[in-house]
Amino acid sequence: MTKTSSGNFFEDFFLGQVIRHATPRTLTVGDASLYSALYGTRCAVQSADSFAQAIGYPRAPVDDLLVFHTVFGKTVPDISLNAVANLGYAGGRFLAPVYPGDTLHAISEVIGLRENSNGQSGVVYVRSTGFNQDGVEVLDYVRWVMVRKRDPKAPTPETFVPTLPSALAPDALGDAVPPLDVSEWRDDLSGSLYRFADYEVGETIDHVDGMTVEEAEHMIATRLYQNTAKVHFNQFTEGQGRFGRRLIYGGHVISIARALSFNGLANAFHIAAINGGRHVAPLFAGLTVFAWSEILDAAEIPGRDDVGALRVRTLATKDRPCADLPAKSGEDYDPSVILDLDYWVLIPR
Amino acid sequence: MTKTSSGNFFEDFFLGQVIRHATPRTLTVGDASLYSALYGTRCAVQSADSFAQAIGYPRAPVDDLLVFHTVFGKTVPDISLNAVANLGYAGGRFLAPVYPGDTLHAISEVIGLRENSNGQSGVVYVRSTGFNQDGVEVLDYVRWVMVRKRDPKAPTPETFVPTLPSALAPDALGDAVPPLDVSEWRDDLSGSLYRFADYEVGETIDHVDGMTVEEAEHMIATRLYQNTAKVHFNQFTEGQGRFGRRLIYGGHVISIARALSFNGLANAFHIAAINGGRHVAPLFAGLTVFAWSEILDAAEIPGRDDVGALRVRTLATKDRPCADLPAKSGEDYDPSVILDLDYWVLIPR
Amino acid sequence: MTKTSSGNFFEDFFLGQVIRHATPRTLTVGDASLYSALYGTRCAVQSADSFAQAIGYPRAPVDDLLVFHTVFGKTVPDISLNAVANLGYAGGRFLAPVYPGDTLHAISEVIGLRENSNGQSGVVYVRSTGFNQDGVEVLDYVRWVMVRKRDPKAPTPETFVPTLPSALAPDALGDAVPPLDVSEWRDDLSGSLYRFADYEVGETIDHVDGMTVEEAEHMIATRLYQNTAKVHFNQFTEGQGRFGRRLIYGGHVISIARALSFNGLANAFHIAAINGGRHVAPLFAGLTVFAWSEILDAAEIPGRDDVGALRVRTLATKDRPCADLPAKSGEDYDPSVILDLDYWVLIPR
Repeated sequence: MTKTSSGNFFEDFFLGQVIRHATPRTLTVGDASLYSALYGTRCAVQSADSFAQAIGYPRAPVDDLLVFHTVFGKTVPDISLNAVANLGYAGGRFLAPVYPGDTLHAISEVIGLRENSNGQSGVVYVRSTGFNQDGVEVLDYVRWVMVRKRDPKAPTPETFVPTLPSALAPDALGDAVPPLDVSEWRDDLSGSLYRFADYEVGETIDHVDGMTVEEAEHMIATRLYQNTAKVHFNQFTEGQGRFGRRLIYGGHVISIARALSFNGLANAFHIAAINGGRHVAPLFAGLTVFAWSEILDAAEIPGRDDVGALRVRTLATKDRPCADLPAKSGEDYDPSVILDLDYWVLIPR
Repeated sequence: MTKTSSGNFFEDFFLGQVIRHATPRTLTVGDASLYSALYGTRCAVQSADSFAQAIGYPRAPVDDLLVFHTVFGKTVPDISLNAVANLGYAGGRFLAPVYPGDTLHAISEVIGLRENSNGQSGVVYVRSTGFNQDGVEVLDYVRWVMVRKRDPKAPTPETFVPTLPSALAPDALGDAVPPLDVSEWRDDLSGSLYRFADYEVGETIDHVDGMTVEEAEHMIATRLYQNTAKVHFNQFTEGQGRFGRRLIYGGHVISIARALSFNGLANAFHIAAINGGRHVAPLFAGLTVFAWSEILDAAEIPGRDDVGALRVRTLATKDRPCADLPAKSGEDYDPSVILDLDYWVLIPR
Repeated sequence: MTKTSSGNFFEDFFLGQVIRHATPRTLTVGDASLYSALYGTRCAVQSADSFAQAIGYPRAPVDDLLVFHTVFGKTVPDISLNAVANLGYAGGRFLAPVYPGDTLHAISEVIGLRENSNGQSGVVYVRSTGFNQDGVEVLDYVRWVMVRKRDPKAPTPETFVPTLPSALAPDALGDAVPPLDVSEWRDDLSGSLYRFADYEVGETIDHVDGMTVEEAEHMIATRLYQNTAKVHFNQFTEGQGRFGRRLIYGGHVISIARALSFNGLANAFHIAAINGGRHVAPLFAGLTVFAWSEILDAAEIPGRDDVGALRVRTLATKDRPCADLPAKSGEDYDPSVILDLDYWVLIPR
């Protein structure tokens, strides 16, 4: 009987199961610095206490995706240690601001199960929620993941596939942003003149810049998030596996794409929701990530005249500039595409 | 006459010599974040202020090995800049908790000398002590190191080999841990159900996971510790040397092994003592570290009913999983073994 | 009409133009830790609150070059995104100490313009000033940079080349250092016995040690500074460019050379001014940086008896130790030289 954890297999999950994840994590200015150094984020709200305070934050909040990765990382040992693939996200909402010094922990509930017809694996749907030290919900999202069975002969659970929203409604957005005095928002300091009214639905933006990823970088990032998925760290084993090399955590790609999108979306300071997302293909070290975005929707938020919401679809590619907006033709993605993410951002009006 | 330091050579040391080391170093949450990102530590006490405070710490303490490496790093310019090899450790004790904001400095005393028969080098034994800004001892350990002579004709000092303990006694453990209310220790948050009474002497644990090391990572770590040993940083010179590449700081391996050992020893939150240790073989970038442990002893600590002590031997290997527990046969280590460390950890009862 | 910024081209600049740069940045202990881990700095004043406080600082200040790189980074999107080369620095002064928690922003003024005879590009001279959150100037320097024209047919501006000082005068130095009680400066803790009076004009120091640079390191550093110059990050594009690889930010070389110079200049705790500097040749990952220095001048600072000023010229090389002090013969630099920097440091008397 070993004391090491080998994670949960498909047959270990049951509908309604609630899993309280280890290890709570205090996010600090040290984590914020590392996040900034890993991605080159430049959004003024998260970068400068003075800017954040001028518009109504008590201080600069932690980057939304650092919160996401931290909560996600907690779920890995229990949910996806035996995952074949991380299939998708839906219904993600940022619910309260997180500041340096706050401590996050996470709980997941199993909300769906569907065994694959081959009997070797199945899809697990979980709603994961991150809380701060006061028990306040800071993030809530659904992901579904294909998990191996330990024993192919284990009984097949009843199939339940949850109904998931294709997008959050505008009135569900903005809980993580205090009321802002946007008259104090200075476009010269934020880096862009373009605000809510300047974006049009259907508009596309090539974010132009490319960022090459090194092994040290994605491993430092992924360990920062206490994400323990083996495929990211172990060249000895992965070198003998299907790709011959370490797989980069999909969230690392999301953060790179978000940082690249500053060039074109500099005032879109907050990710309010993740409507859906798919890691279309894996990324490996040595490759260069590019990104482009489309404005899918623009919405006022009921009761708020400080900020508006833009629904953005961002696609990231590897080793391919995005001037011609590579995406899907029919069901097939351009072979360069690695990420297709649909999310709401808030931007001053 | 140059102002650069070329470090001490064997003939510069004398018995009873006391060396006050430069540079004091304030450890911060920034250092703690980097430590976490470099190794992927997940122990709840060091990870979360809320967890630490619930059981009786004023806040999350700094990782024990970050303290060790910081103190060790201070000693390098004076003790081991001309070292041929770092031969061993003994009698190491953690004596007071270190919190972000504390400033450490170090003093060493030469407690043994033995010239090698070839007249080219000798072994220097030093007891190094780390202090915080209030002059409180936080760490005390002995190491011995083979140091080159500047002049092979320099006179041979009288040989004195100190008597060193093979292990610390249980009543010497625990000074760095305040009295804890372990009724508040939550196993779901710490990541393991196994406490003091659940481990048996003789039990072995394969820590399963592997961690590949990159050049950037070990150099970032070693500089964080202000360790100036040239062999870790200079590919131009090392490329022409005996290994053809940079040598990784042995302490980096200790930290990786400790982080890997979370999987099986998650509740062993504190290294109380380092009984002995040996860097059996060098590690180089690109290789993957694995580890396994044996419980050598289990002891109650006189006067404490909150925590017990486990004496653990951890072996780390390179590019070789540890399922079959590679170690020694006779005097010879398995060629994969790079570290053999004997230490006491504290774990809730 | 795109919302992405393609930066300014030569014809976009005009004499007297004032540019307020985005993104203000709060520097924290997290940034200080990363800076330390990237370069291995060991200067006691910046390393230890206790040391800094003993001599009269309220706490350890942020490293001068972290301030420089942060201010420089802000200017890149507006000044040098379309630069062919960063040609030189002059008249740089550190004007106020920066502590963790301070927020920096930057403004530049165009003080000179000279179109190149080929009509393809021109030289832009800017004075850039960094301010803290209270509007206090912390750094002021001139740089000139060759910038491409968008349209070779754009009209040629009137040429104006500013008169720049070859060096700052001693009475302009020291504003960033509070009055110090140097009787509390402990040479054992600072790492050197050599103070102001111990250095002679004309003295040369080989800093001995070498530091190899990895791709992950220079990219992490350059992103930490929010420097967005494309050539540092994008292997896909640079791989097809003139060098076939990513160019390392010249400031990364300055920081490495400064850290190496600790060995020989350990008590020179503060860069008071940058008289001039030139990035003689590019550096690429995998190469090892060495450095040597010459004491160009030594000056008392009017009104101060705590510290004196040494004018230092530091040259850095790649893959070449500096024992024989490689520099210029005639107009030509030794092919190993990558940096030639002339600056004032302060050192206790």
